[in-house]
Amino acid sequence: MKLTILGCYSATPRTFTNPTSQVLEINSHIFLIDCGEGTQVELRRNKIKFSRIKHIFISHLHGDHFFGLVGLVSTFRMLNREAPLHIYGPKGIKEAITLQLKLSNSWTEYPLHFHELTSAESVLVFEDEKVVVHTIPLQHRIYCNGFLFKEKSGDRKLILSKVLNYNIDKSLYRSIKKGKDITLEDGKLISNIELTEDPKPIKSYAFCSDTRYNEAKIPLLQNVTALYHESTFLESHKHLCEFTGHSSAIEAATIAKKAAVGTLILGHYSTRYSNIELFKEEAQTVFDTVEIGDDGKVFEF
Amino acid sequence: MKLTILGCYSATPRTFTNPTSQVLEINSHIFLIDCGEGTQVELRRNKIKFSRIKHIFISHLHGDHFFGLVGLVSTFRMLNREAPLHIYGPKGIKEAITLQLKLSNSWTEYPLHFHELTSAESVLVFEDEKVVVHTIPLQHRIYCNGFLFKEKSGDRKLILSKVLNYNIDKSLYRSIKKGKDITLEDGKLISNIELTEDPKPIKSYAFCSDTRYNEAKIPLLQNVTALYHESTFLESHKHLCEFTGHSSAIEAATIAKKAAVGTLILGHYSTRYSNIELFKEEAQTVFDTVEIGDDGKVFEF
Repeated sequence: MKLTILGCYSATPRTFTNPTSQVLEINSHIFLIDCGEGTQVELRRNKIKFSRIKHIFISHLHGDHFFGLVGLVSTFRMLNREAPLHIYGPKGIKEAITLQLKLSNSWTEYPLHFHELTSAESVLVFEDEKVVVHTIPLQHRIYCNGFLFKEKSGDRKLILSKVLNYNIDKSLYRSIKKGKDITLEDGKLISNIELTEDPKPIKSYAFCSDTRYNEAKIPLLQNVTALYHESTFLESHKHLCEFTGHSSAIEAATIAKKAAVGTLILGHYSTRYSNIELFKEEAQTVFDTVEIGDDGKVFEF
Repeated sequence: MKLTILGCYSATPRTFTNPTSQVLEINSHIFLIDCGEGTQVELRRNKIKFSRIKHIFISHLHGDHFFGLVGLVSTFRMLNREAPLHIYGPKGIKEAITLQLKLSNSWTEYPLHFHELTSAESVLVFEDEKVVVHTIPLQHRIYCNGFLFKEKSGDRKLILSKVLNYNIDKSLYRSIKKGKDITLEDGKLISNIELTEDPKPIKSYAFCSDTRYNEAKIPLLQNVTALYHESTFLESHKHLCEFTGHSSAIEAATIAKKAAVGTLILGHYSTRYSNIELFKEEAQTVFDTVEIGDDGKVFEF
């Protein structure tokens, strides 16, 4: 699992900082999460292949999280994309994008599927044999969801020396990997545990931005491998959190601790701060495993 | 008169090139012309004060000319702008911007005035005591206008030594500057030409992008100080001009020659070319005074 932060600053794009966008590679999927202005340039800069992006998840319709979407959709069109693109985001996102495509007389020739979200509960938004994605309802100034990405449990691993030793027919390998015990031709039962090892551990990633402090989401976040949680403010400005619908670094760390996550990644810093290391310092007073998100930074889990 | 090119490449923003946007300083006005994605960052990079931008002119609603507008409008809001902003552009621009502001629940608190254009003829879009702006109807794949910015003729310049010599009362200076002759107290008539010099020459700038070759606009461009004319293609791809609604470097130069402009500035290069100097070479086979537009380049006239 690999996370590339394309942008993680709040409010407006600036000369050297970008608004929110991330790329999550998980079980051979490439998911784009949020798409602030300039995201398509950051994708190029970080050498993410446009054609590998098939699903885009938008948390909410504030500009710093979605003003780059229409440009990316248009660029895909100009590059003669044929593969379908799925966009998951709040109700209204379809109208915003399609109106602009209509005005520019530039309909995409590739299929563009919008999956509009309205539920206040966590809902399943994507699932295949490898990955499952649910929304994480967040509390912000407007309707907003985080997203929880989870690998599905893989097959058990064959211990090849054992299956060869028992001279087990290859046609049975698939069911052994699924956990089945085997009866040999002489009637002897071989327990699956003797023939296989545990599959690789399931990894998961939770994206929570933008949100004020809110414990309701903790059950969804329990034990995730990595949690990106917004931390717009330091303690010196914590009085701004409630009104603006944002969190402080300490609040993000408190959520991480209560959910017992593996690693907490901070981001969505207010552009008033010049030294973002202070966010880590404050968060670590509550929770140990804290990483500072920053534009262009890559995390592998 | 000062022109700053923020971006002048066609199609999509890339790591080192920007879509169309320019800043024209003329007679103490600052006009923003077109606003591709990333324009607000280029304004910062070029140290253009956001608060001095009061009028934005949008040629057409293709993304590379207007996808940066909603972000700029939103950033003005976040910076607590109070001054009115006037936006001139094709019908539909108001709906595109206001829909996105509505979805993000982020109405501007400053007055936002849209001046939607529908005419196929040149129309007056802005006028004050210093500058006048008309549209230049262009022929592109969708409704598109260039813009012609003209200084107004200033007052004539007093020759101070002469007016002092005749002992002319100060209350008459204003009318002398406007061109009036003067009758002295002894009845002697002093011709204005003896008391004043010509005002500084009127400067003008024409922005023509995007457009296919089209001589109908030449009368509007006659003798302008500087003409920015798109030149998307070199001769090697001139067969693409008609279909795409664009011009070649030689076509841009032909317009410049027929309109007898002062300087031709080229831009809107297709991103297929790595050496944009070739555009100048080809244009100069037709017209001498050619400049290569490029991102960050500043022209003073």
